[in-house]
Amino acid sequence: MDITTIGGIIAALVLFAVGDILEGGNPAGLIHISSIIIVVPTTLSAAAVATKQKYVAAAYKELKIVFGNPQLNPEETLEQIIKIAEKARKEGILSIEAEIGNIDDPFFRRGLQMLVDGLEPEVIRERMELEIAEIEEYYEGAAKYWITAGETTPVFGLVGAVMGLILALKRLENPVEMAEGIAGAFTATVTGIVSSYLLFGPFGHKMKAKAKDIIKTREMILEGIIGIALAKNPKMLREQLLIYTGKSEEQGK
Amino acid sequence: MDITTIGGIIAALVLFAVGDILEGGNPAGLIHISSIIIVVPTTLSAAAVATKQKYVAAAYKELKIVFGNPQLNPEETLEQIIKIAEKARKEGILSIEAEIGNIDDPFFRRGLQMLVDGLEPEVIRERMELEIAEIEEYYEGAAKYWITAGETTPVFGLVGAVMGLILALKRLENPVEMAEGIAGAFTATVTGIVSSYLLFGPFGHKMKAKAKDIIKTREMILEGIIGIALAKNPKMLREQLLIYTGKSEEQGK
Amino acid sequence: MDITTIGGIIAALVLFAVGDILEGGNPAGLIHISSIIIVVPTTLSAAAVATKQKYVAAAYKELKIVFGNPQLNPEETLEQIIKIAEKARKEGILSIEAEIGNIDDPFFRRGLQMLVDGLEPEVIRERMELEIAEIEEYYEGAAKYWITAGETTPVFGLVGAVMGLILALKRLENPVEMAEGIAGAFTATVTGIVSSYLLFGPFGHKMKAKAKDIIKTREMILEGIIGIALAKNPKMLREQLLIYTGKSEEQGK
Amino acid sequence: MDITTIGGIIAALVLFAVGDILEGGNPAGLIHISSIIIVVPTTLSAAAVATKQKYVAAAYKELKIVFGNPQLNPEETLEQIIKIAEKARKEGILSIEAEIGNIDDPFFRRGLQMLVDGLEPEVIRERMELEIAEIEEYYEGAAKYWITAGETTPVFGLVGAVMGLILALKRLENPVEMAEGIAGAFTATVTGIVSSYLLFGPFGHKMKAKAKDIIKTREMILEGIIGIALAKNPKMLREQLLIYTGKSEEQGK
Amino acid sequence: MDITTIGGIIAALVLFAVGDILEGGNPAGLIHISSIIIVVPTTLSAAAVATKQKYVAAAYKELKIVFGNPQLNPEETLEQIIKIAEKARKEGILSIEAEIGNIDDPFFRRGLQMLVDGLEPEVIRERMELEIAEIEEYYEGAAKYWITAGETTPVFGLVGAVMGLILALKRLENPVEMAEGIAGAFTATVTGIVSSYLLFGPFGHKMKAKAKDIIKTREMILEGIIGIALAKNPKMLREQLLIYTGKSEEQGK
Repeated sequence: MDITTIGGIIAALVLFAVGDILEGGNPAGLIHISSIIIVVPTTLSAAAVATKQKYVAAAYKELKIVFGNPQLNPEETLEQIIKIAEKARKEGILSIEAEIGNIDDPFFRRGLQMLVDGLEPEVIRERMELEIAEIEEYYEGAAKYWITAGETTPVFGLVGAVMGLILALKRLENPVEMAEGIAGAFTATVTGIVSSYLLFGPFGHKMKAKAKDIIKTREMILEGIIGIALAKNPKMLREQLLIYTGKSEEQGK
Repeated sequence: MDITTIGGIIAALVLFAVGDILEGGNPAGLIHISSIIIVVPTTLSAAAVATKQKYVAAAYKELKIVFGNPQLNPEETLEQIIKIAEKARKEGILSIEAEIGNIDDPFFRRGLQMLVDGLEPEVIRERMELEIAEIEEYYEGAAKYWITAGETTPVFGLVGAVMGLILALKRLENPVEMAEGIAGAFTATVTGIVSSYLLFGPFGHKMKAKAKDIIKTREMILEGIIGIALAKNPKMLREQLLIYTGKSEEQGK
Repeated sequence: MDITTIGGIIAALVLFAVGDILEGGNPAGLIHISSIIIVVPTTLSAAAVATKQKYVAAAYKELKIVFGNPQLNPEETLEQIIKIAEKARKEGILSIEAEIGNIDDPFFRRGLQMLVDGLEPEVIRERMELEIAEIEEYYEGAAKYWITAGETTPVFGLVGAVMGLILALKRLENPVEMAEGIAGAFTATVTGIVSSYLLFGPFGHKMKAKAKDIIKTREMILEGIIGIALAKNPKMLREQLLIYTGKSEEQGK
Repeated sequence: MDITTIGGIIAALVLFAVGDILEGGNPAGLIHISSIIIVVPTTLSAAAVATKQKYVAAAYKELKIVFGNPQLNPEETLEQIIKIAEKARKEGILSIEAEIGNIDDPFFRRGLQMLVDGLEPEVIRERMELEIAEIEEYYEGAAKYWITAGETTPVFGLVGAVMGLILALKRLENPVEMAEGIAGAFTATVTGIVSSYLLFGPFGHKMKAKAKDIIKTREMILEGIIGIALAKNPKMLREQLLIYTGKSEEQGK
Repeated sequence: MDITTIGGIIAALVLFAVGDILEGGNPAGLIHISSIIIVVPTTLSAAAVATKQKYVAAAYKELKIVFGNPQLNPEETLEQIIKIAEKARKEGILSIEAEIGNIDDPFFRRGLQMLVDGLEPEVIRERMELEIAEIEEYYEGAAKYWITAGETTPVFGLVGAVMGLILALKRLENPVEMAEGIAGAFTATVTGIVSSYLLFGPFGHKMKAKAKDIIKTREMILEGIIGIALAKNPKMLREQLLIYTGKSEEQGK
């Protein structure tokens, strides 16, 4: 569970409510079902028009890395790489074959298979880099859906407000009803802004940021596989790959 | 038919209408012929002023890839490449000539012709890359027309609203008529925003995204032709090109 | 004459007028001489403050490529290059000297002169690339003037509106006059938006797009001159340069 | 203490107050506790949703380089590098080991350790560059938190204003109270704008700028370590590294 | 004196005044001392919070290149380079030493000194490029201060307007006074927009543009020094460097 995502959303909603109560309002009055219909699902539909079907699906599927944490364990992956590097050095590249079954990550597995198949290091690098580029594009596309939604929804909030104002203007003879109508219209604006700046936009930005970690772990695996292919000294290889785990950063400051 | 394009537009329009009805309005009242004239065709004209004639034409012509799906079949194209690679290996490069007639894609055809003509691989690569760059520019220019339209149309919505407000201000002695005038003026804003965020902007973004797929298939063809020129092992070539079909991505996650 | 520039401007203006008339207004009422003074020449002055003098002059001078079409004929230029390439092959590089007088384009002429002077191909390439970079910067600077003007003018439209509102607020005792004042103030907004999104901004974007064509023709000339210097086969050279004429693009789709 | 940060904030706040007093207002009236709750902590929460947990922590921790000055002394670091370079030249690389304990900066220390361990210069460069990239990403992520907050807070100011307006519209029968309510609602806008343009946005931009200095010092250390590894002449090395201290810039103008 | 800077500012101010007078206003009424205090010095303070101290100082110091013209004379500098190149060819590199005293530009002087000191061309290039990068960063930082100010000041104009509106709302019982208050509040908006789009923003953009000329002259000096180091033919060197003086551009079109 990602505490900044879930905690941030809950904290902001509670604080909006507290502020509104302090001003003498009732936060429940800010939630209009018609405003929400005009602003939220329309935004998600419009963002789908702007996005390839594959990435629309990905946008919803990968919300799991926004709210949860991708199951990455770069340190453990590093240890696996080193263990395999040691085995390959002692018992030869072909001895790796037995290890492949123990690896969960299919990217890692395919890399090891290429090693066992005896592909040239440059060929392995080229293919794994192309795969990493594909993954990058995949998360980029999914994140862009949410960023597009974040740009659309405050403007659709305005549409909701204008629709409400048009209706309010018809009750000119009854100022109290008209004022009520205007107040109701304004809730669409609040819905649009909060959807954009607390939810959709941040979803896109966090997805991008988390995808970077996934990419970085893949780059470590790539460098590890190449290191094994070149029969690098496992101790040196560990030193080299340590930087990808983010450990050196903490020391480095 | 692109379901996210057509489904997204219809869904959003229906939801706007449902929301308006729930608020007690009549969605048909949001459609003013004069507002539409002031906002939509003016936007398309202004975007044409900003765009080269060639790309204005392309913008409308390539709406077909926004609403439909470009007839791409990367897997099938891959199989064609491999079949030709095998033939070239067995029967020599010149045997390809007979195959050229069976290929629909003119880009693919020209590449094979250069092979048969005996051009150097670097020359073939340079020319095909220039062609790919041209295609990229073509779709870029077409998509930019729609993106420019998407940036223009909400502001022209404001022009429509202001024009309406100016007229409404003349009916000061009749508040009901004036309020009606103001309400009418506001519909121009809705027209502008919906045109921008549901139609024109998304058209541009989807066109760009779909063009990327077209480009990627061309890059696969380029790498395939070069692979044949270098007499690469067809099995290896298939492995190398598989990544361009997007298949590895699904496995790769 | 560039039909998308002139046609687009006229079409948009006519459509604005038609829409206003349909709403019961008089389009002539939208044109206030004082609003125009506050919005348009001030914008052109402010954009000049942001721009180097050289590019201010260029911005106005190069409007000719926005409204007209630059006298580019890449196909004809290609034929000239090939003719010279053939002559150089048969009669030697020095035979080109007689051709230089027939070339209109000074960039082309200077390139041929360097050939005749016997400069190394790398030296010729370096110098011609620097010249192309200069030209690019020149059009970039000129286009940026119009883009800056396009960003400034809607905001100066707001200044005009605010100035008008301040005056209108002084006629509080006479609501009809005050409403008239407000209506007048609003025309500044329309002036600002239309200047920005129909004129200045599109001028800048079209100038940039047209400059690209000019640059591309120069790149073809550069590659042609280098091809002659390297004594490339004229037939091969034509094939290579054809891509710069945009012909292959149409075939290529 | 960073005088432009602290002085700038205090000066702006005082000037806002002076201006308000000159207009006949009471600056204390601009501070509404409920407005602040609706605008500020909600913004900080929403920015956290958009940011990885690691960078949220960094954003607050590294405020110290925004308000203070990072303890950088490039000239002194340069002297240390030269002293070590001289020692290494006279007494051999291994003599550096005794110096490592005197170095405070862990990045510098790790570089020297790699020297003593006899790693190849290219290996040292690659690892140190990866570490510098990590540090860059770290500050980038922290600064982006504040920039996101700066983009969010004026819009949440609008939310606060709209909430207040909705409440004010309920007091239609009492114009004085309603006007008071509207005035109160507007304070949220002021809170949002000042938080954004005087605090959060500038925090992010200054953090980025200061991080550049930190990066530059690290690059000097990297080049110094490589220089020692290549046994460069210490006098030449000093000349080369002097540029990183910003001294040459003052001379250079 | 830069005519587009000074002429542009004066022209725009005069035109604003003329337009206001034509509308029946008094331009002096647009200048409120309290509005100016709330908008202008606060903006300059907030931009300082966002900027490193060094660049704040540079922003004000380098206004001289915005209002005046940097003392650049690329043609004359070119002649100096050629004269020195000829001397070096005839009398040897060491003969340059006597010339160094005659050179005003310290960057040029340091380059010549490196020549005389016998440094390798690659070393000279690397150092001079680093120095040019420093200068670029210096002007970039100074220009960014003004661009930040230009982004801040219209929003602080809004703060001024809101402050004034809050005060105006207290005079509800006296509509004339209230209208006066609202009108006064609006002047803050005008102050903010004019400061941004006529002054601060353009200052930043012109500073950037002028800095490019300074950089280009330095690049010419760098290439000249390298040319001398490589003992290039002075006539060829002149041809090569001519492009940096912007002469070829005029021919080139």
